[in-house]
Amino acid sequence: MTLRAAQTPAAERLRIRAGEHTGPTSGLAPGFAQANLAILPADDSLDFLRFCVRNPKPCPLLEVTDRGSPHPTALAPDADLRTDLPRYRVFRDGQLISEPTDITDYWRADLVAFLLGCSFTFEWALAAAGLPIAHQVQGVNVPMYVTNRRCSPAGAFDGPLVVSMRPFPPDAFPQVIEISARFPVMHGAPVHIGDPTEIGIDDLAAPDFGDAVRVGVDEVPVFWACGVTPQAVAIEARPSLAIFHAPGHMFVTDRRHVDFDIKESHDRP
Amino acid sequence: MTLRAAQTPAAERLRIRAGEHTGPTSGLAPGFAQANLAILPADDSLDFLRFCVRNPKPCPLLEVTDRGSPHPTALAPDADLRTDLPRYRVFRDGQLISEPTDITDYWRADLVAFLLGCSFTFEWALAAAGLPIAHQVQGVNVPMYVTNRRCSPAGAFDGPLVVSMRPFPPDAFPQVIEISARFPVMHGAPVHIGDPTEIGIDDLAAPDFGDAVRVGVDEVPVFWACGVTPQAVAIEARPSLAIFHAPGHMFVTDRRHVDFDIKESHDRP
Repeated sequence: MTLRAAQTPAAERLRIRAGEHTGPTSGLAPGFAQANLAILPADDSLDFLRFCVRNPKPCPLLEVTDRGSPHPTALAPDADLRTDLPRYRVFRDGQLISEPTDITDYWRADLVAFLLGCSFTFEWALAAAGLPIAHQVQGVNVPMYVTNRRCSPAGAFDGPLVVSMRPFPPDAFPQVIEISARFPVMHGAPVHIGDPTEIGIDDLAAPDFGDAVRVGVDEVPVFWACGVTPQAVAIEARPSLAIFHAPGHMFVTDRRHVDFDIKESHDRP
Repeated sequence: MTLRAAQTPAAERLRIRAGEHTGPTSGLAPGFAQANLAILPADDSLDFLRFCVRNPKPCPLLEVTDRGSPHPTALAPDADLRTDLPRYRVFRDGQLISEPTDITDYWRADLVAFLLGCSFTFEWALAAAGLPIAHQVQGVNVPMYVTNRRCSPAGAFDGPLVVSMRPFPPDAFPQVIEISARFPVMHGAPVHIGDPTEIGIDDLAAPDFGDAVRVGVDEVPVFWACGVTPQAVAIEARPSLAIFHAPGHMFVTDRRHVDFDIKESHDRP
């Protein structure tokens, strides 16, 4: 692997736009927040927004674009959501039809883009506090599980809560909870700590998405609401068109992780 | 004033529904959160939701009802938003047309109700920490001011940030910030501390809404984003119909203040 100097978010988005980077975005523009992307027709958008408001932990809203606009004016005003993510997944009527690196050909005047918080931010904050993240240490993807908890439905959007899991020793729980809670638009505090079967997970070693991670003998699994939830629910709703970032291929924003720490939010409207 | 025993939120809503209480809701159902109400036609709702997402400090979304439903299933499933607030303000095309105690006659199948966070919750938390709230001590309404800061617009929804002001001594600032920040859906941390002219307020003694409060010689004004903001902006947008709670006549929810403390949000989806 060639080491590259850290780039600004704008520089990374330009490389992505030019087709020079088509892989996952983990590690790009260190210190800056990344976001989940969902794009839906305007007719489905009000119910999807309701779904997000009703389920803020899995679906924390960072930005909603104007009808037909691919520009996220709050998170990165010069960005274009049709070209600035490395890879997308396009669904028609709930069926995956392509995984392009550019969605300009699919764009329509009635589309609305949603940017949702991403766990990279609280992982950054936990790591900064000296709490190692198991899947990072083990060099795999975070494990994700479909739970037996239902989200609050909204119109056609209805489905189970999906969670991600990171193990920690019990003496780290106060810090883990306090730090992740400070980022409510990045999934916030855990939704469950301890026995996986209580939330319908029978086998930690068999995640529904991502990779299994080893849990140390002195560690306990800690579960957070996961951004896969809105994507799974939106696909199930079978809208005429739905576009998402490909897993791990996120939108790199111009906003720093620390901008989303509520403790630092004084003097920011 | 006759002292009444503390009632549950459901009991208070039933008294209000029966017309037995038509005054302000301050002090009702102690310990339980209250909420700002806005009701708009579905055609205006997507832009209003965008406005709230773009301006989360003045417009923190607690709940959005289904089209045509007056039932806030998350905050109080057995409530009816047409009858359970003591007084409403009804606007047609931006003009106030009535201030009824019941809006059943105005209800339409295309209306959507929005419940937004209210400062009563962080005031409760500040008071519980031993920080007296000046306007409560002085027995007046909180002073509110139109600032020179613009909100991020969305469609026809466009206007200035309105703030409320509570003075505190500088040595209380760390606590004041930390405590109010823990309630991001109740306006969160202050948006400005200190010189009012920096945010376009020329005379603290002349608030645009509410009452002036005395600021002690050892005190500094602290400003929070205010729920009057979305109401003022929604009226300016001149929708065919818009209904709000009358000032101070809020919706009493079934959720406790502490439910909205992000430090207590572990193990809650």
